[in-house]
Amino acid sequence: MPLVVEFKPAGVAVAAKEGTSLLEAATAAGVQLDAPCGGQGRCGRCKVRVESRAADGLLRYRGNARLTPAEETKGYRLGCQTFVADVHDRCAQGEERVLVSVPRSRKKVLRRLGHAGARPEALPASSTWREDPAIRTFALEIEPPSLDDNTSDLDRVRRELARQYGVEEIRASLDVVTRLGRDLREADWNVAVTVDTSDRDRDIRLSPRVLAANPARTRHAEYGLAVDVGTTSVVVYLVQLSSGRVIDSASAYNAQIACGDDVISRIMYSQRGQGLARLQQLIVGTVNELIDELLGRTAIRAVDVYEMMAAGNTTMTHILLGVDPKYLREVPYTPTLAAAPAVLAGELGLKLNPRARVSLMPSIGSWVGGDITAGVISSGLYQTDKLTLFMDIGTNGELVLGTRDWLIACACSAGPAFEGGGVSNGMRATSGAIEDVWIDAATLEPTFRTIDDAPPQGLCGSGLIELLAELLITGALEKSGRFARDREAARLRQGDLCMEYVVAWQPETELDHDVVLTEMDVDNLIRAKAALYAGCSVLCRSVGVALADVEQVLIGGAFGQYVNLEKAVQIGLLPDLPLGRFRFLGNTSALGAYMALLCPDVRREVRDVAYRMTYLELSADNSFMEEYTSALFLPHTDLEAFPSVKALLPSSREACAAHAALPSHLGSQGAT
Amino acid sequence: MPLVVEFKPAGVAVAAKEGTSLLEAATAAGVQLDAPCGGQGRCGRCKVRVESRAADGLLRYRGNARLTPAEETKGYRLGCQTFVADVHDRCAQGEERVLVSVPRSRKKVLRRLGHAGARPEALPASSTWREDPAIRTFALEIEPPSLDDNTSDLDRVRRELARQYGVEEIRASLDVVTRLGRDLREADWNVAVTVDTSDRDRDIRLSPRVLAANPARTRHAEYGLAVDVGTTSVVVYLVQLSSGRVIDSASAYNAQIACGDDVISRIMYSQRGQGLARLQQLIVGTVNELIDELLGRTAIRAVDVYEMMAAGNTTMTHILLGVDPKYLREVPYTPTLAAAPAVLAGELGLKLNPRARVSLMPSIGSWVGGDITAGVISSGLYQTDKLTLFMDIGTNGELVLGTRDWLIACACSAGPAFEGGGVSNGMRATSGAIEDVWIDAATLEPTFRTIDDAPPQGLCGSGLIELLAELLITGALEKSGRFARDREAARLRQGDLCMEYVVAWQPETELDHDVVLTEMDVDNLIRAKAALYAGCSVLCRSVGVALADVEQVLIGGAFGQYVNLEKAVQIGLLPDLPLGRFRFLGNTSALGAYMALLCPDVRREVRDVAYRMTYLELSADNSFMEEYTSALFLPHTDLEAFPSVKALLPSSREACAAHAALPSHLGSQGAT
Repeated sequence: MPLVVEFKPAGVAVAAKEGTSLLEAATAAGVQLDAPCGGQGRCGRCKVRVESRAADGLLRYRGNARLTPAEETKGYRLGCQTFVADVHDRCAQGEERVLVSVPRSRKKVLRRLGHAGARPEALPASSTWREDPAIRTFALEIEPPSLDDNTSDLDRVRRELARQYGVEEIRASLDVVTRLGRDLREADWNVAVTVDTSDRDRDIRLSPRVLAANPARTRHAEYGLAVDVGTTSVVVYLVQLSSGRVIDSASAYNAQIACGDDVISRIMYSQRGQGLARLQQLIVGTVNELIDELLGRTAIRAVDVYEMMAAGNTTMTHILLGVDPKYLREVPYTPTLAAAPAVLAGELGLKLNPRARVSLMPSIGSWVGGDITAGVISSGLYQTDKLTLFMDIGTNGELVLGTRDWLIACACSAGPAFEGGGVSNGMRATSGAIEDVWIDAATLEPTFRTIDDAPPQGLCGSGLIELLAELLITGALEKSGRFARDREAARLRQGDLCMEYVVAWQPETELDHDVVLTEMDVDNLIRAKAALYAGCSVLCRSVGVALADVEQVLIGGAFGQYVNLEKAVQIGLLPDLPLGRFRFLGNTSALGAYMALLCPDVRREVRDVAYRMTYLELSADNSFMEEYTSALFLPHTDLEAFPSVKALLPSSREACAAHAALPSHLGSQGAT
Repeated sequence: MPLVVEFKPAGVAVAAKEGTSLLEAATAAGVQLDAPCGGQGRCGRCKVRVESRAADGLLRYRGNARLTPAEETKGYRLGCQTFVADVHDRCAQGEERVLVSVPRSRKKVLRRLGHAGARPEALPASSTWREDPAIRTFALEIEPPSLDDNTSDLDRVRRELARQYGVEEIRASLDVVTRLGRDLREADWNVAVTVDTSDRDRDIRLSPRVLAANPARTRHAEYGLAVDVGTTSVVVYLVQLSSGRVIDSASAYNAQIACGDDVISRIMYSQRGQGLARLQQLIVGTVNELIDELLGRTAIRAVDVYEMMAAGNTTMTHILLGVDPKYLREVPYTPTLAAAPAVLAGELGLKLNPRARVSLMPSIGSWVGGDITAGVISSGLYQTDKLTLFMDIGTNGELVLGTRDWLIACACSAGPAFEGGGVSNGMRATSGAIEDVWIDAATLEPTFRTIDDAPPQGLCGSGLIELLAELLITGALEKSGRFARDREAARLRQGDLCMEYVVAWQPETELDHDVVLTEMDVDNLIRAKAALYAGCSVLCRSVGVALADVEQVLIGGAFGQYVNLEKAVQIGLLPDLPLGRFRFLGNTSALGAYMALLCPDVRREVRDVAYRMTYLELSADNSFMEEYTSALFLPHTDLEAFPSVKALLPSSREACAAHAALPSHLGSQGAT
């Protein structure tokens, strides 16, 4: 008999078998615990409190250094390290129940994603680039068979499509023909035949593929899905194919989050027993839930959704198709697939018309995926005359530099610092996250704003950037990333391991501690921004242009939308260019998928872009480490590259030069 | 608790649930009862004897006129009308067992089919028409990825296939790519890539489809199957695709026999609840058993079988694909499919490489199927200058008339008389069947030969033809099909319902009755041969040629191989042409499938033949009934059409003319 685990404050319960971890049980119950490390007991984020005293013996707990003895005594446990024990004896007599409370600061409250009814950002309601939709429905009045003409049902359809519409040489798959005889007769030979007239994989028009034969008397429209399969979140747009109109959209966290926050954790998870299959199930499940939600709201039938175009990074693409992502993270970082074969929805278990073709935007390399190809398309980079830098900033920073004539891409493993990972009080951009910060230069007292104006829980990416910049500009933080030892301020103090800045005192929060930024956190953030900036530098250098020559910087991805551009330049995350050259584009991945869904010409361009984009492997580039090391300052060793920031800084050039002599302390956390 | 039913003499037992018929139980136990009517209680052929007296209450029996009260008293029951009762109460206490004996004369002993190790007839060991096999394997040495070149795995394969072999633009399906990363590395980048370079459905060369990537160090060969899916039997040839060599072959009864002997019974069966799914399962099961047998004998792996080409009649084709055959037998007899879409083995559950393409020879109409298209191809009819009649004689007689320039086909519903159906002591060509008969003109005493020289059990098709001819030539039978009332002979007697001729006395047999041919049997046989002959006549008339102009008659199908040609002409089953114009071709259906399997050119010709063959619907032809009525004599009303027979006949033209005045008695059985 399984054990019943109830989660507070959500109030949901789930039956869990022996060996199930509380993290798994929570996922099964729809309660998402934070688990950036994928449940390996490394990050300590999935902390919960086991409330029932009667739980002794019902749960097995593996000790972990992430919890203090005091926490353990209070019943705190790591969800991933706490397992349902062999409870057969006790449960046989009746239901045993364990109450587990999920600390509020760990509970994911979705803000900009759709769980709470919020919708993803709007896509263009219709497109100017659309033409000649690949999937079309033809109304046919077919002469019923007679003894004089008992040509087969399929040949009658074939004949009329050719005669009435010039659609020649149709193909029909097994599941269409098994129903065809009945469908035609039930429709009294007046049918609406839906046909896919193009081959998504290749640049050829193939013999048209019959997708459905419905009675002509019922109303028909063909729909498609444009899907952004992100590591963190999944966005689905439901589109009417004939008009290009976005009917509705929905988004949710990628359920794979339970298996790790970043692609590396997911790849590691995929190497466990049924890990890959489980990850595939989770992403398919997430997409299916969003499909259910959209179809439920719009009363559109699943069988009328005839196509899906998805964009995702290379890891997500591999996992969605069930392809082992293992080799992506083994030197020399080789994807099994760049351009994925188109597959049918039925093959993946997606709840569309089972014959719907599922296409994926092609990847460029292991760390530059279809989301970036989509971005290059939807940002128009591939068509511009201007020297353009496209950036997609997230756990990985992907960069594309080029014009209409050439394109070069690279990925810098920035790490999750700007998504709140590896930062003591970092968090995602959800309720209670500090997203804006201003610091008084004299007192170093901060003013901040949180998402939903909730009590502060931690710092999200935009908050971290602003905090860093403010600390730098006010002189609280030196360019080296060390707090100014000579500044007296209530907010600056020696913490357990290193100096730290207190953003919010405990009483303001609903936490049991202050919200702080430590020198170790700063170090992690500097390394993240340095990787990104170094990527930009190397990319430019590799084609012989200067960063300053870049005529426009296009920033895709959800990250960009809430970032204060000036502050990002001040800390050296973005190059110091006139602000007018920057443009935030929003979800370029979804937009690219949407465009490719609608337009055969765009699909051709996608293939062309993917084919001609050069992939620069930074780990094979000698200059990268040099550029990276130079960027391990705020904003940079070379202040001349940041003239606008230089003007703001309180300290002299001499001070900067002095620090430049000892950058080694930034190499490891222990040195600070 | 199910009831255990044991069948004697096979000695096999099976557990049967409530409501299961003994016919179904027998099928489940691998004991094939004869059930031409498909288990509807109409034919009385599935008679068994329930031996256990204790069976009272364990079985429910539906009374049936096919059994005499005496038989019922002795425990005889119809298998299809006897069902496992609600035995819960009795079986709960322990296993209940019922013993059922299957009369020997009903047990199918396979002779010319493969169960007992016999092999189907040989096909040519290699072909002269083969060229350019569609499925080929290419050995590739691929440069392993490096940081300088970490192109994706699939693109590496793509690149090398293009570079080394000029095979461009390959496609790979999901199940190939999900394994590709591992396959390539396990093979140390030395792989044998098997590719399908043509599209079976259409006359175009498509981008090649990758079927497998195996380590180059292991031995490889590509195999295919040529399959004849007959209503009665299934024959599978295992062929090496590169050489065209037939490696082995096997055959078995189509397991659908349990659901009826002929296509009409099968179609009716398909209309019951899960009937269609069950029939599909049975035929797939039969093919899979034969595949297992062949692969077991040859130690060839299933994944190395990359293609299957099957020929079958239109009903078999529909059922194999799971397409409802219902409309085939409803006026106006419209197939849902003529040219079936190619499907993958995995979709049908066939135990080949799951990506193996399964193609079916195209049908011409509801009653002229892919077996006939195959016959036209393999007989060479479509290439000849001679006016040629192709006949496939079975339950249905299918006829094709034509030359290289034109082809016209029709089907005549001859009925199963020449396969032993509708004839009191008819049986299939299995052990104990009388297959040759000679009758003494003076005494009317017969001499006969049985298959396996076993005690006579009944008459098979060839025996029936010979018997009819002998009776006619000796004057025992009049041209009208009535026994000569004026002949005194021990063998001629008044039976229960009509006059009959005794072929074998009971003591010679192992039966409890004499083997006889009744006037009603003769009537059924005459109607069968009349339908076939009338078909030939109408076909010739429809294109304005005389039957006598036919330069060659090609006879396909198993039936033809054992038939005495002269005798078949004597009874008017075949037209009276010089015997040199007849040729028996054997299994033209399997041979056509074999040719199409190997040669893309043949596949093109198949499509062309199917496209240009005219289908003549006899039921819509006014002259058919007239021709049919004229043929309801032995050999025919118009003796001038049978000069060689006329010379043999003892009776005068006057007698024949007299009978011609009263053909009405042949219209129904009751009148004789």
